[in-house]
Amino acid sequence: MTQTKILLSEAEIPEAWYNIQADLPNPVPPPLHPGTRQPIAPEDLALIFPMELIKQEASTEKWIPIPDEIREIYRLWRPTPLVRALRLEKALDTPARIYFKNESYSPAGSHKLNTAAPQAYYNKRAGVKRLATETGAGQWGSALSIACRFFGLECTVYMVKVSFQQKPYRRSLMQIFGGEVIPSPSDRTDSGRAALAANPDSPGSLGLAISEAVEDAAKHADTNYALGSVLNHVLLHQTVIGLETRAQLAKAGEQADIAIGCCGGGSNFSGFAFPFVEQIIKGEAAPRLIAVEPTACPTLTRGKLAYDFGDVAGLTPLLYMYTLGKDFMPPGIHAGGLRYHGDAPLLCQAIKNGYIHPVAYGQKRVFESAVLFAQTEGIVPAPESAHAVACAIDEAIACREAGEGKTIVFCLSGHGYLDLAAYDNYLAGELQDYPLPEAELQQALAGLPQV
Amino acid sequence: MTQTKILLSEAEIPEAWYNIQADLPNPVPPPLHPGTRQPIAPEDLALIFPMELIKQEASTEKWIPIPDEIREIYRLWRPTPLVRALRLEKALDTPARIYFKNESYSPAGSHKLNTAAPQAYYNKRAGVKRLATETGAGQWGSALSIACRFFGLECTVYMVKVSFQQKPYRRSLMQIFGGEVIPSPSDRTDSGRAALAANPDSPGSLGLAISEAVEDAAKHADTNYALGSVLNHVLLHQTVIGLETRAQLAKAGEQADIAIGCCGGGSNFSGFAFPFVEQIIKGEAAPRLIAVEPTACPTLTRGKLAYDFGDVAGLTPLLYMYTLGKDFMPPGIHAGGLRYHGDAPLLCQAIKNGYIHPVAYGQKRVFESAVLFAQTEGIVPAPESAHAVACAIDEAIACREAGEGKTIVFCLSGHGYLDLAAYDNYLAGELQDYPLPEAELQQALAGLPQV
Repeated sequence: MTQTKILLSEAEIPEAWYNIQADLPNPVPPPLHPGTRQPIAPEDLALIFPMELIKQEASTEKWIPIPDEIREIYRLWRPTPLVRALRLEKALDTPARIYFKNESYSPAGSHKLNTAAPQAYYNKRAGVKRLATETGAGQWGSALSIACRFFGLECTVYMVKVSFQQKPYRRSLMQIFGGEVIPSPSDRTDSGRAALAANPDSPGSLGLAISEAVEDAAKHADTNYALGSVLNHVLLHQTVIGLETRAQLAKAGEQADIAIGCCGGGSNFSGFAFPFVEQIIKGEAAPRLIAVEPTACPTLTRGKLAYDFGDVAGLTPLLYMYTLGKDFMPPGIHAGGLRYHGDAPLLCQAIKNGYIHPVAYGQKRVFESAVLFAQTEGIVPAPESAHAVACAIDEAIACREAGEGKTIVFCLSGHGYLDLAAYDNYLAGELQDYPLPEAELQQALAGLPQV
Repeated sequence: MTQTKILLSEAEIPEAWYNIQADLPNPVPPPLHPGTRQPIAPEDLALIFPMELIKQEASTEKWIPIPDEIREIYRLWRPTPLVRALRLEKALDTPARIYFKNESYSPAGSHKLNTAAPQAYYNKRAGVKRLATETGAGQWGSALSIACRFFGLECTVYMVKVSFQQKPYRRSLMQIFGGEVIPSPSDRTDSGRAALAANPDSPGSLGLAISEAVEDAAKHADTNYALGSVLNHVLLHQTVIGLETRAQLAKAGEQADIAIGCCGGGSNFSGFAFPFVEQIIKGEAAPRLIAVEPTACPTLTRGKLAYDFGDVAGLTPLLYMYTLGKDFMPPGIHAGGLRYHGDAPLLCQAIKNGYIHPVAYGQKRVFESAVLFAQTEGIVPAPESAHAVACAIDEAIACREAGEGKTIVFCLSGHGYLDLAAYDNYLAGELQDYPLPEAELQQALAGLPQV
């Protein structure tokens, strides 16, 4: 019987994260202070981040050792399997060989814990007592709650109020791990109180929840802030995904032709793809890298490479990234994790350099593909991850039409067992694709800050 | 770094199921026909089961080969890991070594797919087009929907109406896999129509849903019925759990002192424990086997070993088993899968013979243990599986108090990510233990049929 799951031993959990900043020929333009519009200094970040993470944010060391305490947490679910999707191949009648990296086995149900664990660890070591963060659909809030519990920190999660009401299961999951979940806007912060004063029935937004969490961290000496994507150190931690995948492909005797991931803020995609970018920069054989985003929020395929704020209120540093403008409000697609107006600066630089190719998918095709994947391989993908599934299926169909036996590998960043209402919508024929009208795009881009 | 996950290759998926009927010194008294009260003949079952399963039901062959087509489905998630719970051990400060068999990695989220897959396979081979079944909380209905999709069968699930309304996510999961989910009582069957005529707002019951599914199967020539527990062939299929566990313990160089599983109808427990019973019968070194049931439905610890019906209406064959009486209505504890009034006859015989020791737990202690397990090992257990967790923790605490370094292994039969509302109840302090009053027990037992 063919071994379909390529497994590594726990001793093969990577001993260091891969830092792409060491290899990029052109450094990313630095973040700018939102007030002065000058490059921010490490000490500007020290109010809300521990020094070890600030150092990682700026490091140009190629390999950053992973402390044993973090590898001991990683081994609760890592190394994750790389799986040959034989039944999907058969259903597609394709000569392509399809593999997926299964990050859904994590306690949080997604890749997010790969960075939540080290962020909790470094904060604990720095003497911090509590972490504050925001969450939309709840993936990141779950991961940080779990990580904080593992390292003995308190955790406060500002959850967008409409999600707090509509997604009680995610809230439950955070509470099982001891996380304090607060619907945002709340009366805990100035930003929250101001929003409530303006509209007592405000449904909240991710931008506002970020403002509340940052304010909470800045105003309490024992409290720091944690972000689940976009920043360099977050992408760094996620490279365990791609490093394991590379080792597993080698173990299977495979050379991937195409590697695919979904892309919102960019952390799962970058963590999966950057170890392959290393091969590209070195001039080695490497797969074609494809980042899949929703047509409803086409940051990489139609956005502008420019300085923009990370949040809606314009309080965060300005980042140099592909953006649709901070005021762009994407429609309510089910892949909540792919609704960010910008993207991680390191990923944007890799795209600008031509290492990575972005594409956009409408959610009807995405869910159709997700159901086929579930019915063949038995795993219901998260709506975000389903974007990668759809692209992998299309590439496999192209192989069938061309008679080419390519090797395709994609990242299944999370499962969808807490997102089943989205599948109800799809099965009821109620989904829309929301392609972004050009006029709306231009209007959003016109609001970009002048730097 | 210690390897905490004991893994097997896919080639090590068992090649045969273990049939305890070959080894029991005293055969189980036969099922009786509900009308004649005489032993039922194989042909009595042929209306709703395929001949291969009927043969397995009565077989005394020790090893029943697992067809390749089923092993190819099993390998989507099997072999499941046997995991050393190092972080739980540390939290308990115990010298005990704790392992758990992680059946939650299955596409259905529990062990149920181990038997759903072969049941779908044998029905497909017999030319059946559709399977009908009942489901309460939805675990079994999910598993059978998935298995039917894998083998190209239609699937009709009669879901207890109150669960249909309260557990929309389980319904969604079945529908993603193409299952038709019908709230029971329905107007599809005589039994359903009669119930609706008596009470149009009937919330339904598992007993009634069984009646509807059996009637659907009996009245349609292309349709059979499938049951998720209790029957001999179901327990047989589940022995892959214990066979893998035995191989994994040997690989880890461990001799288990105690093996623990939760027990409702008995399929997960028996699948896990029977391969150890084989060792006991042979006189080999074997662990002490503990079956954990809820105090609210104490079938094994306080029930009577007698002939009783499997369903509430008294339409099924009479089985010789520990029972609380078919009219016993357990309170609404969250472990819906442990609310059955009887238990699998083969398991009852093994208990009667002294191979297995039953204990009962209240749900407050069960959920307290489940939260500790989640916070240390990162997996939220199903409320059913949490009964095994609680007993394992108590045994580990006893080891600490006695200064004994025993090896404890338990079966984590499923995850709780679709049961988070139960955890909300626990965290809100709203759970009750519902110990069964003696008078109520005696009243239920007084209704046992005279055979």
